[in-house]
Amino acid sequence: MPTSHRLALGAPFTAMLSPKLEQAKTAAPIASAKFSVSAKQLAAMIDHTQLKPEADRKMVVQLCQEAAHYGFASVCVNPFNVPYCAELLKESVVAVCSVTGFPLGASCTRSKTAEARLGIQNGATEIDMVLNIGALKDKLYRFVRSDIADVARVCHEHGAILKVILETCLLTDEENVAACLLAQDARADLVKTSTGLNSAGATVQDVALMRAVVGKEMGVKAAGGIRNLQTALAMVAAGANRIGASSSVKIIEEMH
Amino acid sequence: MPTSHRLALGAPFTAMLSPKLEQAKTAAPIASAKFSVSAKQLAAMIDHTQLKPEADRKMVVQLCQEAAHYGFASVCVNPFNVPYCAELLKESVVAVCSVTGFPLGASCTRSKTAEARLGIQNGATEIDMVLNIGALKDKLYRFVRSDIADVARVCHEHGAILKVILETCLLTDEENVAACLLAQDARADLVKTSTGLNSAGATVQDVALMRAVVGKEMGVKAAGGIRNLQTALAMVAAGANRIGASSSVKIIEEMH
Repeated sequence: MPTSHRLALGAPFTAMLSPKLEQAKTAAPIASAKFSVSAKQLAAMIDHTQLKPEADRKMVVQLCQEAAHYGFASVCVNPFNVPYCAELLKESVVAVCSVTGFPLGASCTRSKTAEARLGIQNGATEIDMVLNIGALKDKLYRFVRSDIADVARVCHEHGAILKVILETCLLTDEENVAACLLAQDARADLVKTSTGLNSAGATVQDVALMRAVVGKEMGVKAAGGIRNLQTALAMVAAGANRIGASSSVKIIEEMH
Repeated sequence: MPTSHRLALGAPFTAMLSPKLEQAKTAAPIASAKFSVSAKQLAAMIDHTQLKPEADRKMVVQLCQEAAHYGFASVCVNPFNVPYCAELLKESVVAVCSVTGFPLGASCTRSKTAEARLGIQNGATEIDMVLNIGALKDKLYRFVRSDIADVARVCHEHGAILKVILETCLLTDEENVAACLLAQDARADLVKTSTGLNSAGATVQDVALMRAVVGKEMGVKAAGGIRNLQTALAMVAAGANRIGASSSVKIIEEMH
């Protein structure tokens, strides 16, 4: 079943990136939460994250216990840990978020869709994928979009949501704009700044730009280097409605 | 078809790690090349590597051209770039090496085998996989072995070889010994030190330990942080018969 897209790619797409960037930079900011958020509200925006390759069962158990206790949105874990987290959290409202093509984004589409499908079968209801950064740099826009659209279709067929990681630290502002537009056109549910494993994580500037490009209807997740309350709130003020963090407990405790 | 293993796991395996480590540390060194190697011989030991997520076509073309010119063993690239490299190198003896479960090793076995199979279908004849580090830390030895054995079977059925990345910077010496024994028992062709994306790369000590544990028949690949001739030769002297590097051209040029 082909997905209908709204964007005409190729030359018209390339030509619109620079004006779109200028427009986004001068637009009035769209914040996700204009007024103060409570600790409970902030906790419900956080993907409590443990993606270290050496994460053992004890670390994963602790992650799930903290998520249930604080009411985080999800635990974000590597695919191997999804079945275990789903079992641990089956009585809880905390979602299990898995990853695909993570953290390099340079695997084949077929591997990304299969890994997303397997994650969902194992209990994940959210999938964080990394877009194909090299293909974006090469302006292979049709490929970048179909890579995302195929994973989005798998997610939506199974009632899961898809976040697309742009790895903004590797992108120019124009590439960031292009990635947001392509992810939106491919029916992703959120765009996400960073894997947290590259040279830099989320910045307020990138989050504000992403929010301005995707508008109010799509989600924006800020992740990478968010280690305290001040940074988390700055991301929300810039337009993030989801936060990825491993210091989630510290962030929430700072509010008390 | 079940693979026959020689190692009895569980308590006997755990009990043998410490003595095996002592034995390996006191054994006479097994160097891969006791005498001087020529530039041609060294080049033929190098996997010329480009695993950056932002690698574009131009970088991949350059990698392949350099590999063909210098006679490197292979180009080591992300799965997305395998078909392109296979096409570029079809007239050459340079192998295409792909990765699976890279760089975290925490994907499901089924994803690792599928990604290896796809890489081979796309033209790779060598696969570098990351073992499940969290499971190794949890002493889930049967799982760690079967995770490797399943990928090894896929590789060997299609005439490809398998290297198993241990990510030694995250392991204790005893875990390094366990990983070598499990990879060997699972019929992997080489053990490899590092992804190059974590806190540290290959060390002479780790390479010597790995060589002492796996003996002369299995391969040892040193990778991560090998940026000059001196380091490359030190790895070979310690027992490596394969080198992973992105500075391969610089390394060989230093010999001239």
